[in-house]
Amino acid sequence: MKPCKQFVLYYHDILFGGIGGNDPANATSAAVTNETKQLGNFSFGMLVVFDDPMTKDQHLLSPPVARAQGFYFYDMKSIPGAWFAYTLVFNSSDYKGTINIMGADPITEKTRDLSVVGGTGDFFMARGIATFQTDTLEGTKYFRLKMDIKLYECY
Amino acid sequence: MKPCKQFVLYYHDILFGGIGGNDPANATSAAVTNETKQLGNFSFGMLVVFDDPMTKDQHLLSPPVARAQGFYFYDMKSIPGAWFAYTLVFNSSDYKGTINIMGADPITEKTRDLSVVGGTGDFFMARGIATFQTDTLEGTKYFRLKMDIKLYECY
Amino acid sequence: MKPCKQFVLYYHDILFGGIGGNDPANATSAAVTNETKQLGNFSFGMLVVFDDPMTKDQHLLSPPVARAQGFYFYDMKSIPGAWFAYTLVFNSSDYKGTINIMGADPITEKTRDLSVVGGTGDFFMARGIATFQTDTLEGTKYFRLKMDIKLYECY
Repeated sequence: MKPCKQFVLYYHDILFGGIGGNDPANATSAAVTNETKQLGNFSFGMLVVFDDPMTKDQHLLSPPVARAQGFYFYDMKSIPGAWFAYTLVFNSSDYKGTINIMGADPITEKTRDLSVVGGTGDFFMARGIATFQTDTLEGTKYFRLKMDIKLYECY
Repeated sequence: MKPCKQFVLYYHDILFGGIGGNDPANATSAAVTNETKQLGNFSFGMLVVFDDPMTKDQHLLSPPVARAQGFYFYDMKSIPGAWFAYTLVFNSSDYKGTINIMGADPITEKTRDLSVVGGTGDFFMARGIATFQTDTLEGTKYFRLKMDIKLYECY
Repeated sequence: MKPCKQFVLYYHDILFGGIGGNDPANATSAAVTNETKQLGNFSFGMLVVFDDPMTKDQHLLSPPVARAQGFYFYDMKSIPGAWFAYTLVFNSSDYKGTINIMGADPITEKTRDLSVVGGTGDFFMARGIATFQTDTLEGTKYFRLKMDIKLYECY
């Protein structure tokens, strides 16, 4: 099945709550719960709220074409794993509207598929798949995901 | 595109965790995480769990026609912004069933569109748009949203 | 309307944060926020992150056919009630892929319907209903839900 719309965006997460802290001015996310230290070494239970820039290329400082607003938390004991729910908020000359996404992110897999469960504005009633790839990971302060958004229902 | 079903309901949130506290008997929601005080002045990171009454008119004490059960959190640093995921639970002579909704709530916009991502019972497999408007805001203790629910897939 | 795919799975939740604690090796979930004690006796506001085994029969130690990864929280003051969002992650010879689910769980009802809002892999673009039944409840440490997954959109 071919997507009716497809685009690749990069997600940049600069964690304020990370080990070593961060500059509040640069931070785009913060941990709001603590990991459960007894349940493995992969931050089980840490929940992070974010308002992260989305860019067309890999550069953090490129002009954002959208914001990703939502949360993730870590939920695996023996390998790294996370779960996301968020909204891509577009407000540019190209697109106005939102795309809503949720699903598991088994971080150790090369690619991970989440569900596009709805959309508004230019993405009215959209559904599809968001495929994650880890693009870079810098300690506990910064990571970048490549998100390949494929819509299979467009109106 | 015309909705196959549409109705307006009012959402009433009486926050227990708010500044100044609240009467537990009246409160319909509570903050379960603390804001990250270093990230702006708009409660970034505060997550609120709610079981809020939904009424047909603006009066808090009108008989509720549904409950809104779910959560929101604040996720913006420089202006007020939130993110919601919740279920409208109907159990009246008019309707039995649920409507599931998620999406961003950029509070400063006059209207905000979220996604209706599913439904059960009388709203079996529904999809659509929920449009929010802030109807009133009384300090940090009470706010009311007008929610215009438009379903575009009905069964 | 008849489902295009249907199956029953059992969800096993062994809470680490429960009263009396638990063995970290066995625990599959943990509370990451505290209940708001003033709002009733049903753990209002306690949010639990889980990575729980799903089995074909009721036995906790049967080989899991999937994991349920996500979270629930308690959100009612006068009777027990919860809200779930999670992903069923399949990685077996039978199925590879995910099913994404969200909705209210009014625990005192005999059956509760949540929404299947999306899927990936073998469950590409799935939608449907997940019907919960409480199968057993052992104090605050272990509970088991029967989940009847009915898909009405299959590709």
